[in-house]
Amino acid sequence: MKRMVFLLVLVCTAAGFGVLQAAAPDSPSGMPQYSGDNHLLRPENYREWIYLSSGMNMNYGPAASDHDMFTNVFVPQWAYQAFLKSGKWPDKTVFVVEERGAESKGSINKQGHYQSTDLMGIGVEVKDEARFPDKWVYFNFGSETKSAQAAPKGACWRCHEDHAAVEHTFVQFYPTLKPVAQKFGTYRQEREKVE
Amino acid sequence: MKRMVFLLVLVCTAAGFGVLQAAAPDSPSGMPQYSGDNHLLRPENYREWIYLSSGMNMNYGPAASDHDMFTNVFVPQWAYQAFLKSGKWPDKTVFVVEERGAESKGSINKQGHYQSTDLMGIGVEVKDEARFPDKWVYFNFGSETKSAQAAPKGACWRCHEDHAAVEHTFVQFYPTLKPVAQKFGTYRQEREKVE
Repeated sequence: MKRMVFLLVLVCTAAGFGVLQAAAPDSPSGMPQYSGDNHLLRPENYREWIYLSSGMNMNYGPAASDHDMFTNVFVPQWAYQAFLKSGKWPDKTVFVVEERGAESKGSINKQGHYQSTDLMGIGVEVKDEARFPDKWVYFNFGSETKSAQAAPKGACWRCHEDHAAVEHTFVQFYPTLKPVAQKFGTYRQEREKVE
Repeated sequence: MKRMVFLLVLVCTAAGFGVLQAAAPDSPSGMPQYSGDNHLLRPENYREWIYLSSGMNMNYGPAASDHDMFTNVFVPQWAYQAFLKSGKWPDKTVFVVEERGAESKGSINKQGHYQSTDLMGIGVEVKDEARFPDKWVYFNFGSETKSAQAAPKGACWRCHEDHAAVEHTFVQFYPTLKPVAQKFGTYRQEREKVE
């Protein structure tokens, strides 16, 4: 999903979907929290969730970005533990993909890239079967955005539906979860094929 | 420390420091565990610790590596929480830097890099003031190594001593911890200077 969300963030942010400002914090348990109009409240504590993987400059299209960026993916502890036991994501699972600037020359680093304090935004994917007819829903937050409405199905949902290896999630890019899904038979190997 | 440990892993692994095989698991609480001869037992559950940051192909020297690699850094929850409250690392803090292969062409990804299932090794840094006279000690584990003896002071300790921004840790490369250390006055800003 990493690259996926990178794409959805770019696409959806560019499309300028409306955002609301709300003050309520998310649940410390890592469950999705909404305002009354189905806007997702920003998950504030995701950096204390389970880390799945990072990408750098991942891109699903032919055009390269004009800046270097890392994407870091997190899920709540409770959802991760459920996945380890089943190879499936429980209802209310939340994924966060964090986008951070990449820098190269700093301190003693001379080559390659490290992550900067420039938080560019986060993309959030939620599995919420009771609330949304499409079950998996996508939200994009800028660096300061406190709540967001769901992205339209065509932009984000479609790509996850067509290309993700486990349900709507890009487990093909999460090295520690891939063998778990393979063990439980939930991994679609054909989704690894280069397109 | 990311790049740091990358370097120490390269340097120390190349030097062929002896390793022992041991079967005992590490503590689920994220405290260092040793065999009787001060060999550190491999931290087995670090992927459930707190993620600090990743680098890609970071390098402190002029020579580039011949393969693409990510480095992911983790600390135990208890040590992270202590750092948030003080900007300092408590005694018995353990850092793990995981080295993973980087791939580019796979599934729908066309550019940039994602992490592979190729775990190349881990570097471990421990602050243990009672056990080691140098207080901070470094260990390197291959993908299967179960225990390791401390790396010699010149290879790893020296570089952390001379270049890390907070104690022996490269907080200049950990974007969410840098402002914490700055708030508590434990951050050595001059360590950011390009060398």
